[in-house]
Amino acid sequence: MPTVKPRTLSGFMELLPPAQRQFERVLETLRQTYALCGFAPLDTPLMEAAEVLLAKGGGETEKQIYRFQKGGADLALRFDLTVPLAKYVALHSAELSFPFRRYQIGKVYRGERAQRGRFREFYQADIDIIGDGKLSAANDAEIPAVIYRTFSALGLRKFHIRVNNRKILSGFYAMLGLTDKSADIMRTVDKLEKIGADKVRAILTDDFSIAAADADKILGFMSLSADAPNPAAVLDALEAYRGRNPLFDTGLDELATVVRYLGAFGVPAENFAVDLTIARGLDYYTGTVYETTLDEYPEIGSVCSGGRYDNLAEYYADRNLPGVGISIGLTRLFYILQEKGLLNPELPTAPADALILPMTDDLAPAISLATMFRENGVRAQLYFEGGKFKKKVGYADKLGVPYAVFMGEDEIRGGVVTCKDMATGEQTTLSAADTLTRIRDGLARRESGRIILG
Amino acid sequence: MPTVKPRTLSGFMELLPPAQRQFERVLETLRQTYALCGFAPLDTPLMEAAEVLLAKGGGETEKQIYRFQKGGADLALRFDLTVPLAKYVALHSAELSFPFRRYQIGKVYRGERAQRGRFREFYQADIDIIGDGKLSAANDAEIPAVIYRTFSALGLRKFHIRVNNRKILSGFYAMLGLTDKSADIMRTVDKLEKIGADKVRAILTDDFSIAAADADKILGFMSLSADAPNPAAVLDALEAYRGRNPLFDTGLDELATVVRYLGAFGVPAENFAVDLTIARGLDYYTGTVYETTLDEYPEIGSVCSGGRYDNLAEYYADRNLPGVGISIGLTRLFYILQEKGLLNPELPTAPADALILPMTDDLAPAISLATMFRENGVRAQLYFEGGKFKKKVGYADKLGVPYAVFMGEDEIRGGVVTCKDMATGEQTTLSAADTLTRIRDGLARRESGRIILG
Repeated sequence: MPTVKPRTLSGFMELLPPAQRQFERVLETLRQTYALCGFAPLDTPLMEAAEVLLAKGGGETEKQIYRFQKGGADLALRFDLTVPLAKYVALHSAELSFPFRRYQIGKVYRGERAQRGRFREFYQADIDIIGDGKLSAANDAEIPAVIYRTFSALGLRKFHIRVNNRKILSGFYAMLGLTDKSADIMRTVDKLEKIGADKVRAILTDDFSIAAADADKILGFMSLSADAPNPAAVLDALEAYRGRNPLFDTGLDELATVVRYLGAFGVPAENFAVDLTIARGLDYYTGTVYETTLDEYPEIGSVCSGGRYDNLAEYYADRNLPGVGISIGLTRLFYILQEKGLLNPELPTAPADALILPMTDDLAPAISLATMFRENGVRAQLYFEGGKFKKKVGYADKLGVPYAVFMGEDEIRGGVVTCKDMATGEQTTLSAADTLTRIRDGLARRESGRIILG
Repeated sequence: MPTVKPRTLSGFMELLPPAQRQFERVLETLRQTYALCGFAPLDTPLMEAAEVLLAKGGGETEKQIYRFQKGGADLALRFDLTVPLAKYVALHSAELSFPFRRYQIGKVYRGERAQRGRFREFYQADIDIIGDGKLSAANDAEIPAVIYRTFSALGLRKFHIRVNNRKILSGFYAMLGLTDKSADIMRTVDKLEKIGADKVRAILTDDFSIAAADADKILGFMSLSADAPNPAAVLDALEAYRGRNPLFDTGLDELATVVRYLGAFGVPAENFAVDLTIARGLDYYTGTVYETTLDEYPEIGSVCSGGRYDNLAEYYADRNLPGVGISIGLTRLFYILQEKGLLNPELPTAPADALILPMTDDLAPAISLATMFRENGVRAQLYFEGGKFKKKVGYADKLGVPYAVFMGEDEIRGGVVTCKDMATGEQTTLSAADTLTRIRDGLARRESGRIILG
């Protein structure tokens, strides 16, 4: 007798099998692409000592964290993949080779207020490159190149990876004598696209007591990237400011390096932009910063963000470990793709390519056929249950398998199998080997589409 | 300045990159093989409402569980993948097709006393087939067939999947008039291999007041499988008991079905045995039960266990959902394989197949080469950092990359690249396309070995 009503916690994504299969395709593409670019897979515990996870401490994070005691230990669930990376690198630094390049795809936990499209358990898919003492700015070009390759492999076409450099911003604010207000300014300017220039100007002058002339200079500076036709033109415009602040000049050199090498990495101009308004909220980033937006859905905001940081593991180690990385908020991205209907419905989502339906009491011939299919790479499922023909075909239909294969007495006697294409209804009676060929050819066609449309 | 000593919780496995790469190979093989056999991937939250996870309640589980409060909710981390499956199936039964076949590979949590080789966070890799109302015994044959295929794909050769049926045991104890003691007897006999026949006899007679004659009959019955040369001979010996108890007869029919169809599934006799001593501790299982042992390491015990259960979701739903499943304790298995030196050291474990070392200030030619390699499926890493030639080659050595590729001025001018096989030292200077071919051929050779030796 049931005693508990089954339920899944709110804010926790749990997919039905067809959607799960689509999600697995995304995961597999990410793993393959990250590995192809020479990143090592990493897996760290979901749970850490609370004092380790919260070494940086304070802020929103601490309120959202899942923290608890067990056997006298103060424990917490990770809220991102960067802090565990910092711990890992500090702990194992003697055994790692630097630059250390890792990817990690895993779940993280934030006890946020539950609302539609916000998740308390969600996947992040991160790549980072960690140097020992220093790290070439060319790495800052590779990170968006990997993201371009990843999104392209998923089938995404209409997206922009936006790049900026916080040294350029800090240097520019220093030129205006506004260094002590630069964090406030960056946070405000970051909202330019969302709230518009007038409101940004008002906040700058009213809330942060910035002179109207300076506010205009700031907005004029920001418009350099909005008005330029391409990244090279933004760099040209920025050259006009060179020589007035060393930090600015360094940032401009780094940005020029990124822009220059992105071409060699094969990133086309239509998927890349320099955007001077981007600062990323966190004080964490110190140089290059990234955001990625879907061209047709700007309201979603950035689906993949990151940047350069000066010292990954400052709370754990004396060693200076600068790095650059980026993170895809995978659960949220997948949720949005579902909502917008951007997941290719043509790709098979059934648990099997072929459902084999024995029509005789002796199941051995059907089992042998399934075994042969599996040995040849066709995902084969057997249906052993009794029941009428109609029930069996109904099961095949409901599963959405591309092919149903019937093994009746006639087939067994004739050394053939009957195979029905469930989409077209086309039915063949051929040898097992020829049926295999037919199925494989059909699958190759069905599997050739993009995962994401858009 | 460091403020917190970095550490990983005891009982939590955290691998260095080469071992992680080996673990990823295992995961990938499991995902592929399970999918090939027509199981749908499933992913459920790591966290559930405590009342849902503990619906069955009581026992060791409850003490080991990680349970905590957050925002007024009573939460817990999953301790296996079966309870979340039961919840999932009960919650979504209207949207699923039965038999529902799913695989799930994920971490589970048990706050056990930490000791060597015991983990508090570990992966389980489960497959289950859930029927609606009833489920053919042929499914009980498929489960070990999938495990045979999985272990074989990993490279394992010397293992035995041991099968028994609890109805045979219960029926036999009923014949002896010992039904009310059958759970005690099963738990005792389960230890036969570990403690020997004399101690088992002593426990049966002394602790459970079983007559010496009955204890001998029990031990005699158990020896039927130990003494038989093959599964068919065990079935023959069991036929002598037919007709004396209906439950026994049903169990014997089910076991005969499993033995019969395992051949059609291509499972060779040397990887399969009927073992009447297996009962599995849990009262949970009601028919077929499985254990899997490594021939050369019997002391490890079972690395993959499971069985048939009457009703998966009895605590959540009125619907009768019988099932059969099995679980690989992946983290423990991997730990043992490492300890015993059974992971093939010949397979590459570097984060990249080719490390590309630019020898000029302009990094663009090296980047273009890496991009071309990646487009052709070779995992290519770039080394952008400065430093002497020796330092760069030392990095390649330490990473253990199969190939180092040098791009100096001579190469760029000549339209060629220099490629060194890091294992043999053999160095070639060829076009990029020919270098790619050389690397791909070499990799195919290196990647051809088994993952697990033994």
